[in-house]
Amino acid sequence: MIPDEIKQFIDAFSRLPLLGPRQATRLAFYLLGLDKTSLQDLSSALKNLASLGVCERCFFVKVGGQKYCGLCSDPKRNSRNIAIVEKETDLLTFEKMNKWNGHYLVLGKLAERGIWEQNQKTRLEKLKERIIGELGGSADEIVIALNATSIGDFTADIIREEFKTLSKKITRLSRGLPTGGEVEFADETTLLHSFEKRS
Amino acid sequence: MIPDEIKQFIDAFSRLPLLGPRQATRLAFYLLGLDKTSLQDLSSALKNLASLGVCERCFFVKVGGQKYCGLCSDPKRNSRNIAIVEKETDLLTFEKMNKWNGHYLVLGKLAERGIWEQNQKTRLEKLKERIIGELGGSADEIVIALNATSIGDFTADIIREEFKTLSKKITRLSRGLPTGGEVEFADETTLLHSFEKRS
Repeated sequence: MIPDEIKQFIDAFSRLPLLGPRQATRLAFYLLGLDKTSLQDLSSALKNLASLGVCERCFFVKVGGQKYCGLCSDPKRNSRNIAIVEKETDLLTFEKMNKWNGHYLVLGKLAERGIWEQNQKTRLEKLKERIIGELGGSADEIVIALNATSIGDFTADIIREEFKTLSKKITRLSRGLPTGGEVEFADETTLLHSFEKRS
Repeated sequence: MIPDEIKQFIDAFSRLPLLGPRQATRLAFYLLGLDKTSLQDLSSALKNLASLGVCERCFFVKVGGQKYCGLCSDPKRNSRNIAIVEKETDLLTFEKMNKWNGHYLVLGKLAERGIWEQNQKTRLEKLKERIIGELGGSADEIVIALNATSIGDFTADIIREEFKTLSKKITRLSRGLPTGGEVEFADETTLLHSFEKRS
């Protein structure tokens, strides 16, 4: 009863995160109301992603054919400072802060139980090689910009241990009340952190 | 800093319903982790939607090149009974009920203030033509399968008035407690309806 084109669309798109079968169905009928050019644009936008690659240095996304990503190849950035983030989208938020002029390492999504993937071991090894090969064995600062969660804490401790001889300074993002946060509604752990770090 | 391909993707996809810029960004990085075949499949699934058309009879979706949709051209369905639905997705839910063997009219999304779009006027005119031309001036039943909202009520009243001479019976979906619904938590309007329609 439904044309195959719609079934195929729902099938393909309902496998994506954020979209279940219901959402994919609604999206299909929404898209059917668009003109053919808009559909073509969306289709090309999707296909064009396939041309991108992963930066071998920091593991952020890079333009196909380029050796490094735009961040690693920017001569105005200071490669002696390295922020370790979990995901590409964390990197983007970090960049929006407009305060960081160093380089990055994208570690890759941490498993829920905190077990290291081979992927992550490889990426940390690459960072070590970077520090030894490019920075004479010591970075100026490594900022561990992981989430303030128990997995983040656990991972940060391991990184701190593994890199202790490879950077002058290893820091982590501070914890406390978020801007606009009210004491009354703060959870106990947050409040305890911001109390202990009071200044 | 971000490759243009990603910017274009976010730009195009954040205009879709269900996806804001944040979700489109996350989706972009998720998609970058897929193999090229999966990206190609998604891209084609999107592009292929452009080949579909709208059935001139009931305004549901139809395969390109066909005159009518699969429902209108199914000889086993009874064209003397017509269900009027608002959206294509309403039609799909109606079909899942597995109880309706009639035809449809997809009215198109109703404006929030209940003002008729030209679109909807045209579609109702087409239904009148269908009844006069194909059914000798009178359908057996028109089921007004619109939402149980004030816009739905308002629209249903107009349709009932306009089609009163064109169908032996004009009905609307009943209202009352949903299956599994508890009296204690029913809102007053629902309860009032199910009380008045008690049997």
